[in-house]
Amino acid sequence: MKRKLRMGMVGGGEGAFIGAIHRIAAQMDGQMELVCGCFSSNPDVSLRSGRSLFLPDNRIYGSYREMFEEESLLPKDERMDLVSIVTPNHLHFEPAMIALEHGFHVILDKPITYNLEEAFLLRQKVEETGLILALTHTYSGYPAVKEARKRVSDGDFGKIRKIYVEYPQGWLSEKVENSGNVQASWRVDPKRSGKAGCMGDIGTHALQLAEYISGLKTTQLCAELDTFVEGRQLDDDGAALLRFNNGASGVLMASQIAAGEENALKIRVYGERGGLEWAQQDPNTLILKWNDYPSEIIRTGLGYMSGIAAHNTRTPGGHPEGYLEAFANIYRNVALTIGAWLEDTEPLPEWLDFPDINDGIRGMQFIDTIVKAGYDEETKWVKFPDEPNK
Amino acid sequence: MKRKLRMGMVGGGEGAFIGAIHRIAAQMDGQMELVCGCFSSNPDVSLRSGRSLFLPDNRIYGSYREMFEEESLLPKDERMDLVSIVTPNHLHFEPAMIALEHGFHVILDKPITYNLEEAFLLRQKVEETGLILALTHTYSGYPAVKEARKRVSDGDFGKIRKIYVEYPQGWLSEKVENSGNVQASWRVDPKRSGKAGCMGDIGTHALQLAEYISGLKTTQLCAELDTFVEGRQLDDDGAALLRFNNGASGVLMASQIAAGEENALKIRVYGERGGLEWAQQDPNTLILKWNDYPSEIIRTGLGYMSGIAAHNTRTPGGHPEGYLEAFANIYRNVALTIGAWLEDTEPLPEWLDFPDINDGIRGMQFIDTIVKAGYDEETKWVKFPDEPNK
Amino acid sequence: MKRKLRMGMVGGGEGAFIGAIHRIAAQMDGQMELVCGCFSSNPDVSLRSGRSLFLPDNRIYGSYREMFEEESLLPKDERMDLVSIVTPNHLHFEPAMIALEHGFHVILDKPITYNLEEAFLLRQKVEETGLILALTHTYSGYPAVKEARKRVSDGDFGKIRKIYVEYPQGWLSEKVENSGNVQASWRVDPKRSGKAGCMGDIGTHALQLAEYISGLKTTQLCAELDTFVEGRQLDDDGAALLRFNNGASGVLMASQIAAGEENALKIRVYGERGGLEWAQQDPNTLILKWNDYPSEIIRTGLGYMSGIAAHNTRTPGGHPEGYLEAFANIYRNVALTIGAWLEDTEPLPEWLDFPDINDGIRGMQFIDTIVKAGYDEETKWVKFPDEPNK
Amino acid sequence: MKRKLRMGMVGGGEGAFIGAIHRIAAQMDGQMELVCGCFSSNPDVSLRSGRSLFLPDNRIYGSYREMFEEESLLPKDERMDLVSIVTPNHLHFEPAMIALEHGFHVILDKPITYNLEEAFLLRQKVEETGLILALTHTYSGYPAVKEARKRVSDGDFGKIRKIYVEYPQGWLSEKVENSGNVQASWRVDPKRSGKAGCMGDIGTHALQLAEYISGLKTTQLCAELDTFVEGRQLDDDGAALLRFNNGASGVLMASQIAAGEENALKIRVYGERGGLEWAQQDPNTLILKWNDYPSEIIRTGLGYMSGIAAHNTRTPGGHPEGYLEAFANIYRNVALTIGAWLEDTEPLPEWLDFPDINDGIRGMQFIDTIVKAGYDEETKWVKFPDEPNK
Repeated sequence: MKRKLRMGMVGGGEGAFIGAIHRIAAQMDGQMELVCGCFSSNPDVSLRSGRSLFLPDNRIYGSYREMFEEESLLPKDERMDLVSIVTPNHLHFEPAMIALEHGFHVILDKPITYNLEEAFLLRQKVEETGLILALTHTYSGYPAVKEARKRVSDGDFGKIRKIYVEYPQGWLSEKVENSGNVQASWRVDPKRSGKAGCMGDIGTHALQLAEYISGLKTTQLCAELDTFVEGRQLDDDGAALLRFNNGASGVLMASQIAAGEENALKIRVYGERGGLEWAQQDPNTLILKWNDYPSEIIRTGLGYMSGIAAHNTRTPGGHPEGYLEAFANIYRNVALTIGAWLEDTEPLPEWLDFPDINDGIRGMQFIDTIVKAGYDEETKWVKFPDEPNK
Repeated sequence: MKRKLRMGMVGGGEGAFIGAIHRIAAQMDGQMELVCGCFSSNPDVSLRSGRSLFLPDNRIYGSYREMFEEESLLPKDERMDLVSIVTPNHLHFEPAMIALEHGFHVILDKPITYNLEEAFLLRQKVEETGLILALTHTYSGYPAVKEARKRVSDGDFGKIRKIYVEYPQGWLSEKVENSGNVQASWRVDPKRSGKAGCMGDIGTHALQLAEYISGLKTTQLCAELDTFVEGRQLDDDGAALLRFNNGASGVLMASQIAAGEENALKIRVYGERGGLEWAQQDPNTLILKWNDYPSEIIRTGLGYMSGIAAHNTRTPGGHPEGYLEAFANIYRNVALTIGAWLEDTEPLPEWLDFPDINDGIRGMQFIDTIVKAGYDEETKWVKFPDEPNK
Repeated sequence: MKRKLRMGMVGGGEGAFIGAIHRIAAQMDGQMELVCGCFSSNPDVSLRSGRSLFLPDNRIYGSYREMFEEESLLPKDERMDLVSIVTPNHLHFEPAMIALEHGFHVILDKPITYNLEEAFLLRQKVEETGLILALTHTYSGYPAVKEARKRVSDGDFGKIRKIYVEYPQGWLSEKVENSGNVQASWRVDPKRSGKAGCMGDIGTHALQLAEYISGLKTTQLCAELDTFVEGRQLDDDGAALLRFNNGASGVLMASQIAAGEENALKIRVYGERGGLEWAQQDPNTLILKWNDYPSEIIRTGLGYMSGIAAHNTRTPGGHPEGYLEAFANIYRNVALTIGAWLEDTEPLPEWLDFPDINDGIRGMQFIDTIVKAGYDEETKWVKFPDEPNK
Repeated sequence: MKRKLRMGMVGGGEGAFIGAIHRIAAQMDGQMELVCGCFSSNPDVSLRSGRSLFLPDNRIYGSYREMFEEESLLPKDERMDLVSIVTPNHLHFEPAMIALEHGFHVILDKPITYNLEEAFLLRQKVEETGLILALTHTYSGYPAVKEARKRVSDGDFGKIRKIYVEYPQGWLSEKVENSGNVQASWRVDPKRSGKAGCMGDIGTHALQLAEYISGLKTTQLCAELDTFVEGRQLDDDGAALLRFNNGASGVLMASQIAAGEENALKIRVYGERGGLEWAQQDPNTLILKWNDYPSEIIRTGLGYMSGIAAHNTRTPGGHPEGYLEAFANIYRNVALTIGAWLEDTEPLPEWLDFPDINDGIRGMQFIDTIVKAGYDEETKWVKFPDEPNK
């Protein structure tokens, strides 16, 4: 890269949690700087938020439409290169489309859109424009996850037979959406969240992680969705039996009413000769298990890690990296890829290792499929759409 | 108890694993002693096995039928009180029936019989004779499991909503039944094991544990069973979505092809206010999780444990007890109960806390139900028989 | 072995903790049976205790002197073979001497005697009689500890450089000896416990474990002993820097005022190429650490364990064994060794792997040395007596 | 803060590890930006390094002296506010002094200087100038550590009696300084590192952490230092017994030859009623232990954490933060404090919670004291200088 990239932001104003996370992830490695933003649909809030981030007033916008227009008129060496969109799900599609139309690369939070149709339109636009669109499935940004994927793809475990992926959280055990929890209130609202609650919010992460590590694709699923907290309209819990394209089977569990759990995403993958286990709350450790010899504790930052893991690591062994670094790995790889795009050179393969529009579509298909399966008392197995995928 | 109980054994001769475990469990607390046995259908093997256990030749039998007959003719203060039957599944029913008919109490390994019909007949005999029949669902013998059950029943977590129970093992990942592994060979053989493999062997433990701790009953299940190792006739892996009688839902996973796993039975139960987690490989620890305050590490042997846990504990905190002690808890409670029976007194409630014929029937019903559900591509939910249960 | 050994017991009556532990350890494997005992210096208590253990009145004694005399007059095929002495420290020496004089093998709890002089006299008697005397340093009975010792002695880690051994407990954080805790009251009493408190009770275990695993001998130590609970006469906490005979250094920490700790004995040993870690509260796991490749999780009961570990294991992988099994390993090895003695055959090397009189002397020397060092404000290093040792 | 702070850097060019860490820590929260630097004593390397960081050539300097002079001549709204000095120990003092003389705030890596004399001179300069000097004792930046400190100071555990602090690493087990490991080569060189090796590099962290959490001061220590790798001139291992100013005792262990260990800093503190345990490799967890009730698992990001911990946390529970965030907490607090300085307002108490010149002096005193104690065969206890401290 020859210069820092200039980033704009849509959403993420005062009180928003995920906006700050995106900014940290973008800034950490010094490859991007925040130059503008529309941080709220309320212009006053947007202005206050932008100022607290040390932005000049003329780069703080009252609407994203205005932002994209104004920024596209700025001189080339001043205007933003990419936009990070961190609004609730129902406000992903429009700003992303307009950004692409104005020539800006896009980073989007997951799930990619409000529904599958929007995702398809977005893919069409990405393909038309040749611009880069990245999706922050954070958990695939962890170096130990990348090591896990590499070990599977190297065949260390033999043919994969079984995948358990689980994502229990407890923060929606009580009706916190009624007591001012902003994070909760839009997630349980079908108008803003889409047709799934728990499964859209965290089930999509679980599926993406399972497919990312295993290199397999889900072909069928059998599911039950539950809503335990009275008066809630969307699922706050569910589980699915999975079938994969190589004959493996799996179980996916996601819950937001697993009282007392924090963010306990965990995956286990078993092949003929061995298996692996990774838990997000202890992210620098990857356990390898074997039929006939001792389990091994693989740790990030150590010399034996593969190149792809090392590329996504900043600190030596025993200096824990966490969620923000995993997030920043996506941002950094996107930055490197946009850098290559700007210089019209070929990005390295490891730079391209970030979730993109196809992961986004797969996530929306997952939501459609599990919502269909999860409430059907009769049909056991529902086919996962056979969308061609990278 | 006024005297040691005298125990006989069917099976468990040279080379058998589980026989030695039962003997350790029976002897550990000094309340039972082994006085006779038919350790093998081969009289020479039975004799050699009995001698190595320091039994006199006249109490080592060549057939269990002979043993029950001969023992019943011995003077009252000499003949055995109970028999422990540790043969493969297809050889549970007959010796148990004959033992009961001759007036002996019975301890049986699980699953209780080869099929459900036998289990019903056995229950009839138990009811007729008024004798005690216990089933070694070992895992419910752990003090931390008893504490877990107590906490749930005390309402600490509020209404139970979700149960995850998992039992991954890896020892059948390869076709070890072909290379002389005796434990494997009968378990994968439908003639000796019954209609289920993995689900009969360990799935039954998982279900029993879930129902024991939660106090709930499974009412419906949706399952898939797999056989991953080629040429094997029974399931070596499977998973089920569960529905419980209070509206809770659950997931049960059992596998014997989870390569690299040992005996990783684990359960998590979540209610409205909190949850619990217990893992058999770290059996003296019970984690309690709460919505709004720190998780607690409950440890066996410490002063705050409930009476039922303390009754099933031998050592103070930090002196780990294990599988054999859990097993011995069943034996000890059975011994105390038989002691009361012999003296015609009322057993204490905590003595009666061991798995019995009704657990056995429930296990056989589980096998029937999950085998039916697990291979059905169409029907989603299969009802668990509504057998009246203790 | 051709028959069960017959064991007597001194101490361990009603309310005693360690007596029950010894009985479980002795009985578990069916190689010994309790045939007599003097369970208390109070004949009534002794009688009640013996009856509750199902002993006939004529084998329950009111004094140990009487027991040894009476038993020695019984017919050879009836009288006890060995005695287990489970009294407080000041009551180890006399019964042990008399037992040996009457031809009985002896199992003693540690520390072996009240002072070093007694230990030397006891060794003399053991040598004179040729009888077997075993000391229950339980922690060296764990299979993972035996594996650790084997790995070190095989040179897996290269030359040993550093040993950390720690033994924090918290149960004496408050003055529980004043509130009826029998275990506490004699341990803090110099008349019954000897010249050390914490260091005699658990420091000796730590030292024995360090030397057992490493195969090294402590040559010098520099120590501080503390008494934190007011009014207590003996140390309840302490630490020492250690020097070993191969040039390695070490740290030994023992405390009974580490509030909230249970029985957290742990050891780490490091050599040139790698190290090991074992913690008593997770006893079936041994972690091996390496300079350049992943740490390994060694687990008892698995096929890759060495012969000496396997010999001391009863259950397959994932079926946890604990403190009682470690204890029983000492009893079983002693039983096998006595069995060989009775039959005048050569015991197998693995049978002889139990702590004996020399461990006992080394423990007493440790107490002497650390008490000398621990209160000396001036002298830094105190030499460990250079007693020839096995 | 009204604007981003402008940071310069001394050291941290190509190939340097810690420079990148400091830049990430400085940038993560968007409160500082790197505007200039002298990244190497070799001007070409400095230039290349600065360019790769997207700095303009005129802000990349060939010597730090030049940098401080040139920057001080720049307009006030352009020149740097503070400098981060990330050179080896022998190159801390001079640039720090010159920076202060030119009016720049300073962030220094630990140990603060090459020797104690320099540290005193530096303190004099800090006091003269009224500028801010911060020291990156990273580990006290973790939120769980701040929580630990708060719990101790709130008296939750009663009077503190015992502290164990340990810091085993294994990366210097072999003579890696001979095989091109740049990090190793200066650390083992007394000309660049100072009079201590392991104790200066990591022992200082251990001491600072112990005193930070406990609020106590070490008054005496008794130590042994070792050098295990042949030909090395400084200690690569050591341990000390500690005495604290309230009568508590402690043990400090630090090693760089603990083969297979990563960066295993861990501390345990015990008071009359309970204790705490924190391990740097699992930094978001703080275990509280109690005499009479269950241990608690305190986790960062959850609602029950104290204000000081929450102030130093970016993510909600279960989204792990790590070493870089702990580092960034120091930078952020320094930035907030400099911001107040610039605006001439009073900084909040929680902003001032970063290590400063007094921690630096205490670290140098520790090095002096432990080196004196560690090689003395005769004197047992060496007094820690009684320097008045904040």
